[in-house]
Amino acid sequence: MRRKGTLFVICGPSGVGKGTVCKELLKNISGIDLSISATTREIRKGEVEGVNYYFIDKDKFEEMIENDEFLEYAQVYDNFYGTPKKYVIEQLNIGKDVILEIDPQGAMQIKEKFKEGIFIFLLPPSMKELKNRIIGRGRDSEDNIKKRLKCAYEEIDFIKEYDYYIINDDLLKAVNNLASIIKAERCRVKEDICEIVRKYKEE
Amino acid sequence: MRRKGTLFVICGPSGVGKGTVCKELLKNISGIDLSISATTREIRKGEVEGVNYYFIDKDKFEEMIENDEFLEYAQVYDNFYGTPKKYVIEQLNIGKDVILEIDPQGAMQIKEKFKEGIFIFLLPPSMKELKNRIIGRGRDSEDNIKKRLKCAYEEIDFIKEYDYYIINDDLLKAVNNLASIIKAERCRVKEDICEIVRKYKEE
Repeated sequence: MRRKGTLFVICGPSGVGKGTVCKELLKNISGIDLSISATTREIRKGEVEGVNYYFIDKDKFEEMIENDEFLEYAQVYDNFYGTPKKYVIEQLNIGKDVILEIDPQGAMQIKEKFKEGIFIFLLPPSMKELKNRIIGRGRDSEDNIKKRLKCAYEEIDFIKEYDYYIINDDLLKAVNNLASIIKAERCRVKEDICEIVRKYKEE
Repeated sequence: MRRKGTLFVICGPSGVGKGTVCKELLKNISGIDLSISATTREIRKGEVEGVNYYFIDKDKFEEMIENDEFLEYAQVYDNFYGTPKKYVIEQLNIGKDVILEIDPQGAMQIKEKFKEGIFIFLLPPSMKELKNRIIGRGRDSEDNIKKRLKCAYEEIDFIKEYDYYIINDDLLKAVNNLASIIKAERCRVKEDICEIVRKYKEE
């Protein structure tokens, strides 16, 4: 019997380092794939279509919403972001785990539809350090930085809705903790446990 | 704020390798101590008082039962085994994790008193392999081997009461999975999460 995969949703305020943690994770663990989101925001220097995002226009995005092709979607600042449903469902069905890296708005939408998902909140070491990281990326106006920090405070209030939290004060430690959560969840006793132990009875 | 420790209860049929897995685990992870059980069974060659068990006589054991000094106790075959309460509670209160290696009878007693404990079931790769391991240890009569195997079948039926299961087909893999479970549980969002994130609000 092939066990169904698990959906891991990694979430946290803008600038906390979700992307870096996920990228490092995938080098360290097998049997899990990253879900690629679709977005209407402009492609940034160094980004690759189908690797970082599927970059689509607003019309196409709205068409996909109408056809119920998203697991979740959200407007973040002036852009739309969404998770195409098809790929995630296919992977889980063939027994592969999927990791989704999304903003807290999207995470809570997924939670409504996917109670069996595992929700992980990535925390900065401090708010001061989060601010430094956002400034350090050098892509936000002063106004945007303020917006992002205001959001971060609101988002942290929802941490009790998550299953796990990881403080991203050290990249390797954070990646190691995330890998441990994935490995632990693969050992979790779920409804399919009766199937798994049946073979012991049949010997 | 110091987070309270977690009690990990590792359990599985006689001969599955609980002792070996726990011993290897302690070499690989810090912040966790093994709870030492008390027993009325005879000391075996190579065993050390206070390391493998506290070896006590039946009178002393019964006195401790009367004084409610056990977290759990059970009769396994002709001997008594029990977990002295004091040490476990003290460790958890100072923020240390504790691992308890016990038989399934004891595990279920602990579960009644300690809902917040994490219960892990160690499975053999197969019943045939379990039989081989019990025979290989060379300390059981043919009758005892039969008893142990009968018990194992009954015990596996209770696996759905556990939080996690680990198949002990490869020692290093089993130890790695157990360490992942412990690290993951240290990242779990619990009631104390509000305390943990309060500092972000106060900055």
